[in-house]
Amino acid sequence: MTFNSASMVWHGWGDPARRTGIPPKAMAMLRKELGLSATSTPPVGEPALRMRPSALPDTAAQRLTDVVGPDNMRTDREARLLHAGGKSYPDLLRRRTGDAVDAPDAVVLPGSHDDVVAVLAVCAEEGIAVVPFGGGTSVVGGVEPVRGRFPAVIALDLSRLDRLVSVDRESLTATMQAGLRGPQAEELLNQRGLTLGHFPQSYEHATIGGYAATRSAGQASTGYGRFDELVVGVRMATPTGELLLDHGPASAAGPDLRAIAVGSEGVLGIITEVTLHVRPTPDRKVYEGWLFRNFHDGATALRRLAQERVAPDVVRLSDEHETRVTMALANRTGSKARLESAVLRARGYAEGCLVIVGWEGTDNSVRARRKASTAVLKESRGLRLGEGVGEAWEHGRFNGPYLRDELMDRGVFVETLETAAPWSKLHELHQAVRTALNDALTLRGTPPIVMCHISHVYESGGSLYFTFAAAAQQGQELDQWRAAKTAASKAIVATGATITHHHAVGTDHAPYLSAEVGDLGIDILKAVKARLDPTGILNPGKLIP
Amino acid sequence: MTFNSASMVWHGWGDPARRTGIPPKAMAMLRKELGLSATSTPPVGEPALRMRPSALPDTAAQRLTDVVGPDNMRTDREARLLHAGGKSYPDLLRRRTGDAVDAPDAVVLPGSHDDVVAVLAVCAEEGIAVVPFGGGTSVVGGVEPVRGRFPAVIALDLSRLDRLVSVDRESLTATMQAGLRGPQAEELLNQRGLTLGHFPQSYEHATIGGYAATRSAGQASTGYGRFDELVVGVRMATPTGELLLDHGPASAAGPDLRAIAVGSEGVLGIITEVTLHVRPTPDRKVYEGWLFRNFHDGATALRRLAQERVAPDVVRLSDEHETRVTMALANRTGSKARLESAVLRARGYAEGCLVIVGWEGTDNSVRARRKASTAVLKESRGLRLGEGVGEAWEHGRFNGPYLRDELMDRGVFVETLETAAPWSKLHELHQAVRTALNDALTLRGTPPIVMCHISHVYESGGSLYFTFAAAAQQGQELDQWRAAKTAASKAIVATGATITHHHAVGTDHAPYLSAEVGDLGIDILKAVKARLDPTGILNPGKLIP
Repeated sequence: MTFNSASMVWHGWGDPARRTGIPPKAMAMLRKELGLSATSTPPVGEPALRMRPSALPDTAAQRLTDVVGPDNMRTDREARLLHAGGKSYPDLLRRRTGDAVDAPDAVVLPGSHDDVVAVLAVCAEEGIAVVPFGGGTSVVGGVEPVRGRFPAVIALDLSRLDRLVSVDRESLTATMQAGLRGPQAEELLNQRGLTLGHFPQSYEHATIGGYAATRSAGQASTGYGRFDELVVGVRMATPTGELLLDHGPASAAGPDLRAIAVGSEGVLGIITEVTLHVRPTPDRKVYEGWLFRNFHDGATALRRLAQERVAPDVVRLSDEHETRVTMALANRTGSKARLESAVLRARGYAEGCLVIVGWEGTDNSVRARRKASTAVLKESRGLRLGEGVGEAWEHGRFNGPYLRDELMDRGVFVETLETAAPWSKLHELHQAVRTALNDALTLRGTPPIVMCHISHVYESGGSLYFTFAAAAQQGQELDQWRAAKTAASKAIVATGATITHHHAVGTDHAPYLSAEVGDLGIDILKAVKARLDPTGILNPGKLIP
Repeated sequence: MTFNSASMVWHGWGDPARRTGIPPKAMAMLRKELGLSATSTPPVGEPALRMRPSALPDTAAQRLTDVVGPDNMRTDREARLLHAGGKSYPDLLRRRTGDAVDAPDAVVLPGSHDDVVAVLAVCAEEGIAVVPFGGGTSVVGGVEPVRGRFPAVIALDLSRLDRLVSVDRESLTATMQAGLRGPQAEELLNQRGLTLGHFPQSYEHATIGGYAATRSAGQASTGYGRFDELVVGVRMATPTGELLLDHGPASAAGPDLRAIAVGSEGVLGIITEVTLHVRPTPDRKVYEGWLFRNFHDGATALRRLAQERVAPDVVRLSDEHETRVTMALANRTGSKARLESAVLRARGYAEGCLVIVGWEGTDNSVRARRKASTAVLKESRGLRLGEGVGEAWEHGRFNGPYLRDELMDRGVFVETLETAAPWSKLHELHQAVRTALNDALTLRGTPPIVMCHISHVYESGGSLYFTFAAAAQQGQELDQWRAAKTAASKAIVATGATITHHHAVGTDHAPYLSAEVGDLGIDILKAVKARLDPTGILNPGKLIP
């Protein structure tokens, strides 16, 4: 049995062979600006990892084995380590420094919806906590093996649920099992001339079920729709029965209960199948770069694109700080690069902001929509940089997590967080989060670089995706992380923005959820949980504060 | 105090002066095809209406008066009669034949969100059922004054909540109070250069709160979005507190709890304010007619429009039967009309299906999108009839309910119902519902005319809107209605389609909801209701079976 996570190292992201390195000039810049020491900070060796023995009672272990078979009921160290948490900075940091103490007591791999139902029945009766595990890519503590009030916890690894169940070509929908990873799902659809068009940065490992459970958004979601908008139907196993919703194209039959399953983060049930909108595979994809004089001009252009309903499928606008670092990482040297810099300076774009736009579809559709978008970008004083910049972005679009591993090896604290707000509040939010991160980290003697981009646009607003880096405070990394995260979260809440645009709630954002949905909103979630999961075994400590 | 419903007659729709009459030729056709007798069947006179005395206990009446003031606490016959039910065929039939027995015991008109909260507190303590009442336009029994297990019921008329609370011009959102009627809301927005773009057939009376509580869809919703898609935020008063959700442009902060309020049909709380997407007032509106040789060709064209993302803002396709009656009602006579008919016959469109398409927006946007749609319509073998046909449709777009009144005066049983399904099931659904209605009514000796149109299109499917007419069975009209409604509903459920695309559940569709969301789905609604409305006073008998 290989895990979905088999190509994932326990101390980082994916396959280390995929790392691309950091250009020396960029590294020198970071060293200087962040005040890094030359100390290398690699992960501990595997044998040094601390992990407590499995606490799964024998009866429960036997009953679970009876359900899934001995090969799919794992209590070995490797399996437990690979399910010891997600991929947030604190997750990685703990494991890199030798702490896998709280790894799950077992990893159970069901092969069907019915297996999931049977596993839940055993765990409810035996009092074992259950953490659903797809690609294990959560960056908000969503798959942390929290035991809650139970003596043991299992990771319910869904990677064997990897079938494309059915395709309705005429209605352009497809039903897929929850454990299908992004690339597997795309491949199965591509063979039929279809695409899901969902490409989050976690794409290489994240699963269909995880996308649905966390209301994911991908890099092309401005065009294809957020994952919650792609969900037509959902099948969810709960300890008290099955929720099977197929909403069809539209309905007014009471509250849309899909919204209870989608975004439920494994707390209300285990999503086993999802029916999704799919689209014909695009004949053509064009990505290109544009430059704006400043973030305000760029944001105004993006707002117009969305509100005039001519937004490209991919749209992102980096602020001045992110643009500067992106350019440094691109490592362009030589006389041509110097000449281009001089031209940009002369035209007033020296401190500019980079926009990446992309269109996908039929030749006709790409041509027509690109023309419409281009008119707005030009009117908004954008400067076209061309397709080379767009292609460079596309080439590196899934590299971020690898880069983080390399930076962590070099003593860098690097983290991301994201939010969204109406256009009328976006600049205030941008400044508030920047200031909060700057202040919190400067106060600790580790002034950061804070970068931001608008990652998705909507008619009424946009999302802000922050990446920040500082010198890691050796031995106090978790305190440092918590200080930054808390400051940023409080700034977000104070601005009235959402605590998360697409990373979900998990453990990290749970304390801020009531600010968003109110105490009564939390009580609604609790009432639904009490009905679906009366013993409370499902993903303790996540979502509901 | 005038009601929102003041311009509504108790026995029909709106203001009778707005009726436009039925062309004699069309009436002759109906008489012949339906086998109508010449008997006229007008409503009884107002004095003949039976209504039981108000059963509202004095204490409750006094406490409610203390909250809203004496002018807004009405127990008079006129107020009670105007809130005695909605506008479904059985609703009208009962009142037209003298039955207003179960009119609500009082009509209470709160002036603010806080008033609503206070009224709910009184009613929860006194054990009085509460039926929220916006425009009173429900056609599914949604505002029926059902007492449930309570001694008395009030209609909570929201017409005093008629303010445009705020507008965010930059983010294109507006916050409106729930009692604003369609035309009032449009006027307030138009003054600011904005539009909601929501035009259901009930537009002249239906309210913002009602739209949200029922997940309404309007005639231009293919372009502007269904009402549930327009909702950014919602404020709902419940007996146990306030639910205040502002989702912003997008969020992944757990399940989208707006979906609990939107579509809750007054059963979980009273929606008092809604924040909505708005758009700039269109500079230009173009509507035009097209003809297809048959329903299948037309449906294929509409599917392509949706899936290639070039759908007009308004799209509807009438089947052969609806097209034929529409043409008869249009009353075109003379040599020009005869010549046109001959030409259509010669070209194979004699038994054709009418499509109405419309685009709204800036000149540029209308031109570009019309060009893209037109290419698909032509490729799909559509024949353009021109803007005259489109304008005729636009002119009469809100006339349906008036026409029903005139037909009911002439002994006609006339009713509508609607559903939606994936494209791959749409023709099966169309046939199944047609057959069910034909069989059920023919069996009773009243063979019907059954007409249908696709009213909204989506990438994955479309909605079917049925209108059917038969000779009313004098004295057995409710049995006749029930036979037809039951047959159609069972056919819809058997096809796996939704029991309602935009009319909501109310009392009429409640028995079919579990087929759609499962027993566990119903239990989720019950769990939420138990938390929000523990005494069960809110809109008894609606939504939850």
